[in-house]
Amino acid sequence: MIINMSGNAAKNEIEHVIERVKESGFQPHLITGAERTVIAVVGNGGRRHEIEALKAAAGVEDVVSIAHPFKLVSRQVQSQQTIVNVGGVRIGAENIVVMAGPCSVESREQLFATARAVQAAGASILRGGAYKPRTSPYEFQGLGVEALRLLAEVRDELGMPIVTEVMSTEDVEIISEHADMLQVGARNMQNFALLRRLAKTDKPILLKRGASATIKEWLLAAEYLLAGGNPNVVLCERGIKTFETELRNTFDIASIALAKELSHLPVIADPSHGTGRRSLIASVSRAAVAVGADGLIIEVHPCPERALSDGPQSLDFTGFEEMMRGLSDPMRRIAAAGARTELASEVAAS
Amino acid sequence: MIINMSGNAAKNEIEHVIERVKESGFQPHLITGAERTVIAVVGNGGRRHEIEALKAAAGVEDVVSIAHPFKLVSRQVQSQQTIVNVGGVRIGAENIVVMAGPCSVESREQLFATARAVQAAGASILRGGAYKPRTSPYEFQGLGVEALRLLAEVRDELGMPIVTEVMSTEDVEIISEHADMLQVGARNMQNFALLRRLAKTDKPILLKRGASATIKEWLLAAEYLLAGGNPNVVLCERGIKTFETELRNTFDIASIALAKELSHLPVIADPSHGTGRRSLIASVSRAAVAVGADGLIIEVHPCPERALSDGPQSLDFTGFEEMMRGLSDPMRRIAAAGARTELASEVAAS
Amino acid sequence: MIINMSGNAAKNEIEHVIERVKESGFQPHLITGAERTVIAVVGNGGRRHEIEALKAAAGVEDVVSIAHPFKLVSRQVQSQQTIVNVGGVRIGAENIVVMAGPCSVESREQLFATARAVQAAGASILRGGAYKPRTSPYEFQGLGVEALRLLAEVRDELGMPIVTEVMSTEDVEIISEHADMLQVGARNMQNFALLRRLAKTDKPILLKRGASATIKEWLLAAEYLLAGGNPNVVLCERGIKTFETELRNTFDIASIALAKELSHLPVIADPSHGTGRRSLIASVSRAAVAVGADGLIIEVHPCPERALSDGPQSLDFTGFEEMMRGLSDPMRRIAAAGARTELASEVAAS
Amino acid sequence: MIINMSGNAAKNEIEHVIERVKESGFQPHLITGAERTVIAVVGNGGRRHEIEALKAAAGVEDVVSIAHPFKLVSRQVQSQQTIVNVGGVRIGAENIVVMAGPCSVESREQLFATARAVQAAGASILRGGAYKPRTSPYEFQGLGVEALRLLAEVRDELGMPIVTEVMSTEDVEIISEHADMLQVGARNMQNFALLRRLAKTDKPILLKRGASATIKEWLLAAEYLLAGGNPNVVLCERGIKTFETELRNTFDIASIALAKELSHLPVIADPSHGTGRRSLIASVSRAAVAVGADGLIIEVHPCPERALSDGPQSLDFTGFEEMMRGLSDPMRRIAAAGARTELASEVAAS
Repeated sequence: MIINMSGNAAKNEIEHVIERVKESGFQPHLITGAERTVIAVVGNGGRRHEIEALKAAAGVEDVVSIAHPFKLVSRQVQSQQTIVNVGGVRIGAENIVVMAGPCSVESREQLFATARAVQAAGASILRGGAYKPRTSPYEFQGLGVEALRLLAEVRDELGMPIVTEVMSTEDVEIISEHADMLQVGARNMQNFALLRRLAKTDKPILLKRGASATIKEWLLAAEYLLAGGNPNVVLCERGIKTFETELRNTFDIASIALAKELSHLPVIADPSHGTGRRSLIASVSRAAVAVGADGLIIEVHPCPERALSDGPQSLDFTGFEEMMRGLSDPMRRIAAAGARTELASEVAAS
Repeated sequence: MIINMSGNAAKNEIEHVIERVKESGFQPHLITGAERTVIAVVGNGGRRHEIEALKAAAGVEDVVSIAHPFKLVSRQVQSQQTIVNVGGVRIGAENIVVMAGPCSVESREQLFATARAVQAAGASILRGGAYKPRTSPYEFQGLGVEALRLLAEVRDELGMPIVTEVMSTEDVEIISEHADMLQVGARNMQNFALLRRLAKTDKPILLKRGASATIKEWLLAAEYLLAGGNPNVVLCERGIKTFETELRNTFDIASIALAKELSHLPVIADPSHGTGRRSLIASVSRAAVAVGADGLIIEVHPCPERALSDGPQSLDFTGFEEMMRGLSDPMRRIAAAGARTELASEVAAS
Repeated sequence: MIINMSGNAAKNEIEHVIERVKESGFQPHLITGAERTVIAVVGNGGRRHEIEALKAAAGVEDVVSIAHPFKLVSRQVQSQQTIVNVGGVRIGAENIVVMAGPCSVESREQLFATARAVQAAGASILRGGAYKPRTSPYEFQGLGVEALRLLAEVRDELGMPIVTEVMSTEDVEIISEHADMLQVGARNMQNFALLRRLAKTDKPILLKRGASATIKEWLLAAEYLLAGGNPNVVLCERGIKTFETELRNTFDIASIALAKELSHLPVIADPSHGTGRRSLIASVSRAAVAVGADGLIIEVHPCPERALSDGPQSLDFTGFEEMMRGLSDPMRRIAAAGARTELASEVAAS
Repeated sequence: MIINMSGNAAKNEIEHVIERVKESGFQPHLITGAERTVIAVVGNGGRRHEIEALKAAAGVEDVVSIAHPFKLVSRQVQSQQTIVNVGGVRIGAENIVVMAGPCSVESREQLFATARAVQAAGASILRGGAYKPRTSPYEFQGLGVEALRLLAEVRDELGMPIVTEVMSTEDVEIISEHADMLQVGARNMQNFALLRRLAKTDKPILLKRGASATIKEWLLAAEYLLAGGNPNVVLCERGIKTFETELRNTFDIASIALAKELSHLPVIADPSHGTGRRSLIASVSRAAVAVGADGLIIEVHPCPERALSDGPQSLDFTGFEEMMRGLSDPMRRIAAAGARTELASEVAAS
């Protein structure tokens, strides 16, 4: 860490800070510049938070941290890519894994029809909400345990592992009995009580990025899970909140590449929430795969205009099939781009 | 609600939507414009979510909601200002209520010294964290039950009601036994399981605005509490997350005035988190009072540079006293502004 | 447009608004709902801004515009894709067009070496800054006319069309004499005096999206160019300003797909500014192509660590070659994704 | 500056950076930490941009700047508050200066009536737009020179100095002939060609903060003016663009206090654009004065519902008078707050 003294810091203020650095178990390293004094804090095993608190000391302008604050999730600690096994499906390996299904489980018919359709089109994990986080108390809140039973039934019949959201520590047990993977939603990314509880399960966790979480905060939320004992974490970018209102969220595609650079955990993309707009889901899915995502999670409904939640961003069966075909076909078209750009430069040169 | 058909919607698409509006228990009202058709949805008692889902129907460009989505918190439903009684202190009445205390309870000495100091300076409620939401699992997480006991002890000795944060449904009972008011932190504003549980307590709730919550989402979070049975809710603006990095958050002063215009609930301000910078707390506190806030919540520590959390935004005792005096004195200076602006215009006119 | 009266609007307030709608050349359409009255404004040829101003009338809560505010750039007006010809290179046609070159022109050697390298790797247009918009007055401001001459020299020798930024109406003439395409930078996207002047040139314009511009504002800036007489406009997404500080900007990939859905203009991507981080440029470029961008603009420098501007986001020659190869190779890898997702589902089913 | 080497930087990479620091005219200061090496860059008179460019060198993770990048606007360079004289009205002195008038000059009657009304209520400078930056080319663009003549006429008759916006270098001369102060609008805050031209005038400049400008970028834009020769700059906070859509902008009240802490320039507030909502202007104006603003700029129109621009955020004459009275009266009410909070604590203690 670097302690940046203000330009007019007094001599005794500088000495006080040096004293405090030593008390905290580090070595201070004084650098006297032309305009100001900087104190580099060197060493291992000191108490970092005591150095951070010095931001409040007289004469200190800022305390700048240089190292990343996360450890277990970091590629510096583990360079090898983590592969998370969800009921036999391996996330983070060579294959792109597609999770699909309805936003909310609404009925046996709806769920079975959707599961069969997405499986036929190439999805390997079924998603479906039993407990729904809804902005208004007057909106549909999910079928709860009944939905969990339906999900387990589908899994047993079709052989698709199940992922569903957990909103409260109190539901962890019952959901763990039915699902293969537990999802932490964007609104709960910093629900630390929930993260601590999930660190104690043996289920893989799908950790969505909060709508206003920085990439560091997202990785630190994952750090809660790993530090608490659960190494099976898959990250999921689902868009962040920005000034742009035309789309539900701003899908932060570069965060996928950066999260994979900083961490060994698999990262998947949620273009349904990431855009909120059906017409963009196929193209943004292709982009997510191109940037290096390990998988996708997509909302699908037999009849989006009758969905109890998230209809406008749900694909119908035909739309999902087309999107899945698009993951290969348009890519082939793109594959020729190198050749084509050469052509374009020939035109320009002629 | 208004259903906005796209410019090239087919006749049968329009008819389908009209049919669906009727099925949902509303009356459709067709308006044929020069460029497109719009269907106004009129009536009471229909199923709103079915209309919203029509955004997914063929030929529909958008569904625009006109009414505000909240009810019980709205001034249209209750025009009279709510007053929340916290252990004898009335929030929302004529008096500005100041809550103050340390970010985290660290020890009996720290807590008692701070409580006495803030009480002497005019604070009427003591704040202090027992369970701390921390971005990193390696940071100080609070003293838990031990802190609750210390808080209750101070309350009994000094007669100051206590407010402290609750992070999990599992802690609601034990915290309710010790505290006079339960705080929902910014990160948990949309922890709906927690909100539903708190709606069943008889304790007043301090509901902080989420760092990326719109004013509507904030009021809808309060709606969960009122709809669930707890009318004693105080809102708290604590800054939102924006591109500006010089300060910890962007303190949204106009949201206080707007929340008070839209809702009858009291609204207080948290300039400590709202700015993250000690030197700005006194001036932003004055601004919050000037805009109409019903109170303030301020972090105070005997020695900020040794605080286990939030030192850089904590006032020491002297700083807090000055801030409190500033709430009246500089206001007196401002009080003369009208006169002085007249003077300025005389200068200009001369 | 829809005029949304407030719940307690008086009868005479409603009548007044109806009267004003007629005065403005439209037909009012009264819809009396359960909770409030709504007035739909129908017709062609009325004065829209007079309706918008009614937001200020007594009893009016809001005026909601339904139609998009742009016309000439809209796909509803022109469904056919626009192709912009820049010195023989066609943007918006089948080929992905890559523009590349240094952030700033620094010397003849630097420019020629870079131009030859990017041309050899497949770029067909040369970018290079002569007039640089710099946040601080103490930073390098560009070589000006000298840079323009060097750019023209390269074009004549290598046969690569030139794109360079124009920052002021006063420079339009001299830049037009030397360059094949004029770039409006993000900071000038709403420099309307500049847009009006550029609408009168016969040069194609590269219009970067402002760092805080919505997609609508971006398209309306393009509308200034088309309405003023210049149909040769290429849009460029270069990242928006958000709370995330790990990267220079948040690259809004979905905006490319949405801009192409709403408008017939070509859209290219700038992953250099969009991320500000060299290590992410290749993967974000692939994503941009996958989402449907018509081209890329990339910063390249012979020795980024000695660049006078934007070094950290510049590729060196080897990096650029690899990126260009990546546009085809990794795509081929992705091309197999459909097959591989089927494999993954087989694993799950087995 | 601090150069932060990555954890696995090679020895020769570190040596290369040390060499480059010396070449750039600084002294390198090597600090070998437990996890990584840090190089502090010390000295005066070196070439800073060369150090910044080292972010692109192999083995470098980040280059952190410690000093603020602005100089002439800084309080460290000039501790004494600047007072800007606009036609005899002193901004930055003890008096709160209120500028008021219509968004756009629409006619002689409108302008004279408004000027008389705002002057009578205590405003000392008249604002009025002649050249209007409008998001759409189809909106009213201002009366241009005709408006300038009307403004000058009012000034001569009523003795109120005039402030009006300049959008282009080409208009600087004509506007300087008529107005007493030239306004740079939010969209042009980083129109550096315009800033450089305005640095050469002898007129005071009102520099609005860009909608997505950080406080540092805002101060650096002012630095362009001072460095170019014009010391008479008044800063104006007018709200920033955030995810909150209920209001036109998010008024960043703390930025006023911070700008005054960092700089000696006067800072005024624009609650009209800062909120976009008439009902909030009076309360946000009081807050701005309470936080320490040196003045206010307010949009006023004889009949907001007929305004050609910005009607919804314009006050009518009565509204403006009430706002001006509110600057003193409610302050008096607040002045008693200290006393009242003591009362509240007595209640709590009893």
